[in-house]
Amino acid sequence: MAEMINRQILFAKRPEGMPDESCFKIVKSQIPKPQNGQILIHSEYISVDPYMRGRMSQRKSYSAGYQLNEVITGGVVGRVIESRADAFRNGDYVAGTLGWSEYSVIDGKDVRKVDKEIAPVSTALGILGMPGLTAYFGLLEIGKPKEGETVVISAAAGAVGSVVGQIAKIKGCRTVGIAGSDEKIHYLKNDLKFDEAINYKKNNDLEMAIQKACPNGVDVYFDNVGGQISDAVLMQLNNNARIPVCGQIALYNANEQPVGPRIQPLILTHTALMQGFLVRNFSERYDEAIKVLSLWYREGKIKNKESVLTGFEKLPIAFIGLFKGENIGKQLVKVE
Amino acid sequence: MAEMINRQILFAKRPEGMPDESCFKIVKSQIPKPQNGQILIHSEYISVDPYMRGRMSQRKSYSAGYQLNEVITGGVVGRVIESRADAFRNGDYVAGTLGWSEYSVIDGKDVRKVDKEIAPVSTALGILGMPGLTAYFGLLEIGKPKEGETVVISAAAGAVGSVVGQIAKIKGCRTVGIAGSDEKIHYLKNDLKFDEAINYKKNNDLEMAIQKACPNGVDVYFDNVGGQISDAVLMQLNNNARIPVCGQIALYNANEQPVGPRIQPLILTHTALMQGFLVRNFSERYDEAIKVLSLWYREGKIKNKESVLTGFEKLPIAFIGLFKGENIGKQLVKVE
Repeated sequence: MAEMINRQILFAKRPEGMPDESCFKIVKSQIPKPQNGQILIHSEYISVDPYMRGRMSQRKSYSAGYQLNEVITGGVVGRVIESRADAFRNGDYVAGTLGWSEYSVIDGKDVRKVDKEIAPVSTALGILGMPGLTAYFGLLEIGKPKEGETVVISAAAGAVGSVVGQIAKIKGCRTVGIAGSDEKIHYLKNDLKFDEAINYKKNNDLEMAIQKACPNGVDVYFDNVGGQISDAVLMQLNNNARIPVCGQIALYNANEQPVGPRIQPLILTHTALMQGFLVRNFSERYDEAIKVLSLWYREGKIKNKESVLTGFEKLPIAFIGLFKGENIGKQLVKVE
Repeated sequence: MAEMINRQILFAKRPEGMPDESCFKIVKSQIPKPQNGQILIHSEYISVDPYMRGRMSQRKSYSAGYQLNEVITGGVVGRVIESRADAFRNGDYVAGTLGWSEYSVIDGKDVRKVDKEIAPVSTALGILGMPGLTAYFGLLEIGKPKEGETVVISAAAGAVGSVVGQIAKIKGCRTVGIAGSDEKIHYLKNDLKFDEAINYKKNNDLEMAIQKACPNGVDVYFDNVGGQISDAVLMQLNNNARIPVCGQIALYNANEQPVGPRIQPLILTHTALMQGFLVRNFSERYDEAIKVLSLWYREGKIKNKESVLTGFEKLPIAFIGLFKGENIGKQLVKVE
């Protein structure tokens, strides 16, 4: 019998409200063998993302739900250590949706190659991966910012929000971020050159703070969080405003139906557009977007920022930390 | 001194909550004289529309607010009784935004001619006027219904909703109306051939009633009312649903901020689009739409339905009646 030296993380319990470590279980298994057309990879970076919370519920959601006692899946960058697929050689880096597993076997057609010459391979989970693509399509295809307009972003220091703001700057917009710590505010203003950044935890009158930061009103609100932060932003909408709804992290752990001010009167009065979207709606254009994002990265127009925990077993606490606002930029786990 | 035989209605008091007759005041005045380029018209039909409630508030709205002690303005169809504009002759019918006044003088360029051979002139305030255009553009440009999809309409027996449903039928959609009386339900199902119609006042479990009427879910929700009716419809959204927000009549008379379940999670989960709109956003295409609507009317595909009160002095109670759900089809006042 082969040595059990692979580790995997199972979905052990559905969370009620905020997930905790008991929702996860580490198990040992054998390292699998690739068949024809497959590759064996060693996971180097594993992504934790807020949308995964939705997959833990039994509620209907846009992603298939996780099944209890099965390996959790998500974004992974790995190195090929045994290839039985023509397109891959040992040592190649690949990215794809894989298990939370130190070693995985997958069909070559189900991953994409990552060019480590362009940027650190971990960016394939961040600015040059799903979060970067989400920012790109959500802002440009739904938000449609025009030069001189004001773009407000919630969870602005997160993996998606930080790219949205940087693209908004490239497009010549007044860019205002909302985040929850002084460190994040400093990062947004000093590193990413946002025009204004608002610490919602330190503003008793958020509506007033947004009004002050947006003297010409809000043309685009890129919504990652929902809840009271969004209520405050929506009060400052300009006519014909656009609201890409990318996430609702403030509500993901709610056990009861969240209630708040009705927004349809504002949508009507300002002839605003609100649209929920998934990055995969744009999958046919990923290559185009990755090219543009890579160019911006090489030109220094988009900076990469990661929060990295080291050690495969840190995945659960990295995931839980997303809902405590612990990360700046992309939250990753580096597998040793 | 000329005889004071013209009557006008002034905006006398801002309503708090539901408007009542004390918000209006009838005054007598002289019949005005047209100058060069102007016409004198006698109002034949005057329109009352829910959006006018917004103009009575001091809140920011999409239409300019009414000023106290000034003549209320709205949609009017009138007959030219003295023309000093080349394009008009005595006896011509015109439609435009005019005062609540038995006689009005207006520049010829500010009204459009109404062809009484095509349809009764009153339709210029209904199916071939603002409500018809609102239905046409809101449904086709935002709702974008596809054959076989399900379209749900609130205030379905109203001036806009009844046209929306008839266009949805023309487009081959399953068409479900929500309204507030058995008479309206009968009208929707028997006269307009809606597939289903739901009396929200007789259904304790509106969500269940909508689910039953929409076994394949809701692809387009044309929202005229907001509030709890909309809450129930939104629970049945299909992925990629479209929600034109045309009105929020359930909330227009609210004195306090209306509160309800947060809808952004549904918008996100179903990658839905919600858009507020004003018919005047499409003003460059009015001629095209009127041609199509006129054709459908002549072919019997769109039926005209009006609730008419006779007597200029009935305008206030006709307007107030809108918020009590008294009208089927377009509510008009015929000026004797």
